[in-house]
Amino acid sequence: MKYFDIVIKNGTILTMDLKNPVINNGIVGINGELISFLSEDEGNCFETKKLIDARNGIILPGLINGHTHAAMTLFRGLADDIPLMEWLSNYIFPAESRINPDFVYSGTLLACAEMILSGTTTFCDMYLFEEETALACKDAGMRSIIGEVLYDFDSPNYGSVEKGLIYTESLIKKWHNDPIISIAVEPHSLFTCSPDLLMAANELSLKHRVPLILHLAETVDETKQVEIKYGNSPVQHLNSLGILGPHIIACHCVHINADEIELLNKYDVKVIHNPESNMKLASGIAPVYEMLSSGITVGIGTDGCASNNDLDLFSEMDTAAKLHKIKNMDTTVMNAYAVLEMATIGGAKALGIEKIAGSIEIGKRADIIVIDIHKPHLTPMFNPYSHLVYSAKGSDVLHSIINGRLVMSERNLLTMDVKKVMEKANKISKNILAN
Amino acid sequence: MKYFDIVIKNGTILTMDLKNPVINNGIVGINGELISFLSEDEGNCFETKKLIDARNGIILPGLINGHTHAAMTLFRGLADDIPLMEWLSNYIFPAESRINPDFVYSGTLLACAEMILSGTTTFCDMYLFEEETALACKDAGMRSIIGEVLYDFDSPNYGSVEKGLIYTESLIKKWHNDPIISIAVEPHSLFTCSPDLLMAANELSLKHRVPLILHLAETVDETKQVEIKYGNSPVQHLNSLGILGPHIIACHCVHINADEIELLNKYDVKVIHNPESNMKLASGIAPVYEMLSSGITVGIGTDGCASNNDLDLFSEMDTAAKLHKIKNMDTTVMNAYAVLEMATIGGAKALGIEKIAGSIEIGKRADIIVIDIHKPHLTPMFNPYSHLVYSAKGSDVLHSIINGRLVMSERNLLTMDVKKVMEKANKISKNILAN
Repeated sequence: MKYFDIVIKNGTILTMDLKNPVINNGIVGINGELISFLSEDEGNCFETKKLIDARNGIILPGLINGHTHAAMTLFRGLADDIPLMEWLSNYIFPAESRINPDFVYSGTLLACAEMILSGTTTFCDMYLFEEETALACKDAGMRSIIGEVLYDFDSPNYGSVEKGLIYTESLIKKWHNDPIISIAVEPHSLFTCSPDLLMAANELSLKHRVPLILHLAETVDETKQVEIKYGNSPVQHLNSLGILGPHIIACHCVHINADEIELLNKYDVKVIHNPESNMKLASGIAPVYEMLSSGITVGIGTDGCASNNDLDLFSEMDTAAKLHKIKNMDTTVMNAYAVLEMATIGGAKALGIEKIAGSIEIGKRADIIVIDIHKPHLTPMFNPYSHLVYSAKGSDVLHSIINGRLVMSERNLLTMDVKKVMEKANKISKNILAN
Repeated sequence: MKYFDIVIKNGTILTMDLKNPVINNGIVGINGELISFLSEDEGNCFETKKLIDARNGIILPGLINGHTHAAMTLFRGLADDIPLMEWLSNYIFPAESRINPDFVYSGTLLACAEMILSGTTTFCDMYLFEEETALACKDAGMRSIIGEVLYDFDSPNYGSVEKGLIYTESLIKKWHNDPIISIAVEPHSLFTCSPDLLMAANELSLKHRVPLILHLAETVDETKQVEIKYGNSPVQHLNSLGILGPHIIACHCVHINADEIELLNKYDVKVIHNPESNMKLASGIAPVYEMLSSGITVGIGTDGCASNNDLDLFSEMDTAAKLHKIKNMDTTVMNAYAVLEMATIGGAKALGIEKIAGSIEIGKRADIIVIDIHKPHLTPMFNPYSHLVYSAKGSDVLHSIINGRLVMSERNLLTMDVKKVMEKANKISKNILAN
């Protein structure tokens, strides 16, 4: 008789693997970190330590948040609805100048709680004190790609600019063989990083074969600044420095034209779309349909909680699907499947982890969520893809498995004491206001 | 000692009444249908049959869904991401030609379940067999403004066009004194109703002093059709027929210009904004910020489930706040308070029920919800308005009281067997596909 550490049964498996997209009344068998069995339930006999009954729900790859600043959960709702420069200068920068390792660990743990509760199993982070981010993810059991933000100013973490690369390299070495944490090189943007810093970061990224992640063409202001300083648009500037390639993950890409889309596609640059943040900060609408049509790999992200203000990919998918219909005045663009792809296998491809995550396939790591469909807002059921994108909420996610480990069962977080995590966050927030 | 039928205590009351906006650590006393007491908790002594502990959460007026087609829950996800005319002609119209009273009753009950579970206490409906809608609302305990759709074609309910007004008048008379149901006159739109029908509908509305509700300037196509047929834009056409006034509730108003905004404002026409439906159907973005700035009363609605695909006003508020920032490329427009207003007291004003609903004030009907804030995605708490619009989800609503009646307690619906409601909906949906 077959043995599995975990079995999920009695659900519709949407694998997000085009070779085998839907398994009705399916069974997933997990051993260790890996998916080891996948089939329709034909009365199969097996033994297991842990049987999860999906109760006719949907079994889906865990969602992938392609871009966030996790610890910024602690700034959630600190300041909204004010001009971008005022928001940055009067609220975010002063608050950030006072953050410390405890802030980042606690804020990231809170972010992991929120993300697991809303179906996310992997996220890609850019922030300060990222060693703490890694430690919080280890404790939460969350898969993550993590990078210390690099820029031309002194950092409250590593100090002067040249030490940022040293700190990043030490992270890369330390976490090299971790099963859920991996490290990227993350220069902040073209308007906060000199060409020298960008090129040194790119070299480090190529040396260790890890992604280079940066903000690109997010706002009109940024684009203007780069044009004035370097005589080039952001994408052209990156190209002139020789920093376009398949290892580049460019977040936002709002202000890019058709030629630049072609250039990004030619160099197989990956893009992360952050629709709600771009809307709330009035940055613009990225030409995502055009990028996807040209063949660019696009993932989806929530961005940080100071500009969204949550980390819920269900709401982000819903918004993305609708936003590009209105942008293009065409109901057929960005259909439900295409958007779900951005949050699963497309996101995995964008982050370079498609060999281990993003779909339910034998041999991949078990990053799987189970969604309850017995809710009025998911009734009746004509099309599960439509329901996942247009009707489902993060709170419909019942169970979550990351890297073969059950991290949420019946909406209870198993890897942390969520009450304590929230208490700590509330305590830190009082200090943010006090200072 | 004071006696109340229901007391809610231990929460922050956001009254949405500008004279008395926030009551920290507040108490609400309810007797019969009415709010009879409102104060800060200073150890007040009272007796009550039912004490609701808000557990430091938010006590808010119930949300008001200004425009929907409730029974269309049964078409949720039937067809998405296809061109509008194909969607209408191949899916919605054929499916609607087969609906019957049982469909409308069951679909509306499902809609009420979803709406109560996500914090809505009042909705405004336009559909067929609306007597059934009223009966479902009575059973669910939901406040509603209801109207039979009128158009130039035969209706599966009342038959030929002239009988629609007779049916509507019978509804008005039957429900005249009901505490939670009221009736409106609802011609569908300018492209489906002749000038004669519109004018007769307007006369009936004025005769009984009930609102006249219609779709207005929703799509480019509609606007073109009206211009070709009548040589006027939709708003001008309505004006030329003498049908602009404070009793008119115009849903959508996407394609209107500055002169028409002035005209709507001059006649005190009310507007309902449906951002997610307008996005999903690629109809356009209504100039809501401009309308609000001119002084027009604007409420918010979800529209029907075939074009959204849910009835969740929390997600609708979040989208509205962000959509108009990106439309105007300005982070300061449609701040959290302004958007929450559209879903509460603004919505009540739009529907003409501001004397009884939309805010927490002594003497108003008790339509109140309690929101749990002990969730990772609502932590920490800097600003409750920001959290309600940008971070809260429908699933955070714990309790709901409508017209003084507790209809949901700890997320359990008290007025219906939700499992049976969903079973019935699933059964009907099988017939929709079978035909």
